Amino acid sequence: MQVIPPALERLIESLGKLPGIGRKTATRLALNILRRPVSQALELAAALSELHGAIQLCSCCFTFSESDPCAICADPKRNSAIICVVEQPGDLLAIEKTGSFRGHYHILHGVLSPMDGIGPEEIKIRELLARVNSGTADEVLIATSSTVPGEATASYLIDRLQGAPIKLTRLACGIPMGMDIKYADRHTLAKAIESRSPAV
Amino acid sequence: MQVIPPALERLIESLGKLPGIGRKTATRLALNILRRPVSQALELAAALSELHGAIQLCSCCFTFSESDPCAICADPKRNSAIICVVEQPGDLLAIEKTGSFRGHYHILHGVLSPMDGIGPEEIKIRELLARVNSGTADEVLIATSSTVPGEATASYLIDRLQGAPIKLTRLACGIPMGMDIKYADRHTLAKAIESRSPAV
Repeated sequence: MQVIPPALERLIESLGKLPGIGRKTATRLALNILRRPVSQALELAAALSELHGAIQLCSCCFTFSESDPCAICADPKRNSAIICVVEQPGDLLAIEKTGSFRGHYHILHGVLSPMDGIGPEEIKIRELLARVNSGTADEVLIATSSTVPGEATASYLIDRLQGAPIKLTRLACGIPMGMDIKYADRHTLAKAIESRSPAV
Repeated sequence: MQVIPPALERLIESLGKLPGIGRKTATRLALNILRRPVSQALELAAALSELHGAIQLCSCCFTFSESDPCAICADPKRNSAIICVVEQPGDLLAIEKTGSFRGHYHILHGVLSPMDGIGPEEIKIRELLARVNSGTADEVLIATSSTVPGEATASYLIDRLQGAPIKLTRLACGIPMGMDIKYADRHTLAKAIESRSPAV
């Protein structure tokens, strides 16, 4: 017997396709949406319907944007001589939130992962090399994640870019701010010792 | 400067209104939706748009349903003489999943919570009393949550129903199946001792 009405079931299934949302959470969300005013469901539906149409990739840095070039690439107050290379648009948002970076970005839209069939041609590496070769940048800050595929991608980029007349930099690795040293993992602590900086 | 495109921001805000989804999770979900095929976003949008129109409350038990009466109330194979009273449609789904209950339900759509201005008139208590008074039921199983407002609601229902010519029952409280006794909380363990049953 069909205990869950089909319209509710369709919403549960659609929500369940989102990352990190299993059947149980999807059911909880769907029942909650049903209890709220219809206007909220329609607002979310409208936002979803408009999303892909409104947003494109910036042809310069490949972030998600409604304009091309994006707001960052078009901003004359930002330093186009430094390009920060990140895996995904979400990484750009995280860096922007710090307020510590005023340069441009380059979004790879992925990491190298030969096991999944993702080689240099599948992510925006060719476009990065073309940007660097066009000669506007004098520094490339590689800000891929500190994960195995992130490091592999960084190594590949370093390999491809080290002949170029630019400064190649990486994000610093070390103890997270505010973390007690005894809770830091062995590898992070080792890296922090290795990369120690002068105290005065 | 607007780093997040407005169309993406609208989706993040809409997703962020869902329960248990904060700004960070909403951003992660929205970026993920943007990376997937547009068909998935439209499928979810359609499910959301249709939801409230397709679903109504069953006029008998008040669960969410596309038909009235709902599939459970209309099923001749189910025992209409026993009414299981739950707080929300999600509780009905949880009980249905056990396969251990073949009676009918009554959804209160809330619990008594005087602090929030929710008295007996705000939830479907009058409708439950009317169902019981109509004389079709011979047992009412009160299955509100084992929380303070759930217990208060149960007490109120017991008070209102104890004059009726029916059997009034509650869900058993005790040690969860598979749980090590030393991890059970004090109150649960006390309840389990109090309600101990013959071993043979």
